[in-house]
Amino acid sequence: MRSSMEALVTRVQEEICGAVSSVEGRPFGVDAWRRAEGGGGITCVLQDGEVFEKAGVNISVVHGTLSPEAARAMGGGRSLVEWDGGEQDLRFFATGLSVVIHPRNPMAPTAHCNYRYFERGEEGAPSAWWFGGGSDLTPAYLFEEDARHFHGTLKAACDRHDPDFYPRFKAWCDEYFFLPHRGERRGVGGIFFDDLHDRPARDIEAFVRDCAEAFVPSYLPLVVRRKDLPYDGAAKRWQALRRARYVEFNLLYDRGTLFGLRTGGRVESILMSLPLEARWEYAHEPGVGTEEERLLEVLKRPRAWA
Amino acid sequence: MRSSMEALVTRVQEEICGAVSSVEGRPFGVDAWRRAEGGGGITCVLQDGEVFEKAGVNISVVHGTLSPEAARAMGGGRSLVEWDGGEQDLRFFATGLSVVIHPRNPMAPTAHCNYRYFERGEEGAPSAWWFGGGSDLTPAYLFEEDARHFHGTLKAACDRHDPDFYPRFKAWCDEYFFLPHRGERRGVGGIFFDDLHDRPARDIEAFVRDCAEAFVPSYLPLVVRRKDLPYDGAAKRWQALRRARYVEFNLLYDRGTLFGLRTGGRVESILMSLPLEARWEYAHEPGVGTEEERLLEVLKRPRAWA
Repeated sequence: MRSSMEALVTRVQEEICGAVSSVEGRPFGVDAWRRAEGGGGITCVLQDGEVFEKAGVNISVVHGTLSPEAARAMGGGRSLVEWDGGEQDLRFFATGLSVVIHPRNPMAPTAHCNYRYFERGEEGAPSAWWFGGGSDLTPAYLFEEDARHFHGTLKAACDRHDPDFYPRFKAWCDEYFFLPHRGERRGVGGIFFDDLHDRPARDIEAFVRDCAEAFVPSYLPLVVRRKDLPYDGAAKRWQALRRARYVEFNLLYDRGTLFGLRTGGRVESILMSLPLEARWEYAHEPGVGTEEERLLEVLKRPRAWA
Repeated sequence: MRSSMEALVTRVQEEICGAVSSVEGRPFGVDAWRRAEGGGGITCVLQDGEVFEKAGVNISVVHGTLSPEAARAMGGGRSLVEWDGGEQDLRFFATGLSVVIHPRNPMAPTAHCNYRYFERGEEGAPSAWWFGGGSDLTPAYLFEEDARHFHGTLKAACDRHDPDFYPRFKAWCDEYFFLPHRGERRGVGGIFFDDLHDRPARDIEAFVRDCAEAFVPSYLPLVVRRKDLPYDGAAKRWQALRRARYVEFNLLYDRGTLFGLRTGGRVESILMSLPLEARWEYAHEPGVGTEEERLLEVLKRPRAWA
């Protein structure tokens, strides 16, 4: 499973970078990095483009020994074996793909996906293993057909594996990407799941593969559709205000970001998710009946999209 | 002490707003707010000015009953009485002044100060009380004479009360405003103290008053000195990159910000500290021998300034 998932994230990274760079018309910058404690990764970033303000596609394959505190924070696979606090269980392996794409045009949405596989214990005979992941869409302006296309594509991928997956993981996504201090979701959602280990690993891997492969067709057509729409300075400022909420979510609540920063992950690969530009205006409120207000209503009360 | 501190923060808020608005040439916007659980505050903000991109001066006087969890997170006054988990100790009173000023010109530094007084228990016979506070300077470009002036003014205020205060609180400030994931301090420091209750409350109040009154003379001359210096787009981008680090500190580590957000404080008053604009570029590194690199060296290895 380790090498199979490593091959999967490597292949999907290439596919996503290829598709995004073909829209931009220039390639990603590529940074391969090693981790002193074991493993490494490849971080691909395309920044300050014409279509994409910032696009990051990161894979990592890391292994080592967790501190007991990190192991607890990591969670996962809890129902497989009882935590015995012993040395063996602190060995871990993790591989994952993480993608965040912030287009320049405020009419084109931001998107994120992340798929990951964890093991604790010995290679070949792990004491615990699990999958996590998901994909979500964050528009600054709401085009309902874009939200429907994004969710519909993910639902089709889910439905090929279990008809319960999409409704369950859609609700989990709405719950996870929530900013309690704002009373808002980060965006219009998608799917989110964690600690998945309730069926054969090969079956979950096939599901994760379908989801990861759905990222490009779920998202890139939306960028192509919106990237040349006209917009003014006020729309660009609204986009920067929304990106500030993205920053708030990632730095205050996102488990992966906080876990990565606290356990000495590669900072630039973790924070590549943050937008090129963000803006905090005191007590900003969109006008009544505006498109900006319409978006906020959907962030406050998530809808069914597929 | 409650009414005395309330009068102090109210008066100093007026002084700071008056001094800042006289440099800008226009007044602050004023929001008075009430808190459902008891108390309220006044938030003054001057945004998108010619000299000041964003300046916030907030006071609050709040009281109520803490959850046991919030009381633990709040800390303070621990050595006065043993925590007995009883009902009485959960009553609290807090009053404070909080100031963050982000000038437009990247040669002019950002500054922050915060002074606060807490009580737990009954009015007139608290089971615990303590003071906290401090003031720190965050330049995007280092002018050593500015750091010396800022620290020198704070040191003079400290020295009038205890010759140990400045060295102790300067070191505490360097320790507190630290971003472990970056290996950098937020700025060139100043003073920071918390849980101060080791002498009569009137003596600490006098010290806090001197510090709060030192904010304008420690900082505003630096803005006046730098606000008309020439700068280019690259300097403005560097300022936005530094402001992103300010955001990282406040959302990842600042105790007051996290405590306020988690206990249902007024979000816009808490997050008024965030800059109008911030920028995250992947793996940005200043060139060798540049002014930008010179700043980073000081953030990595704090210096003596007074």
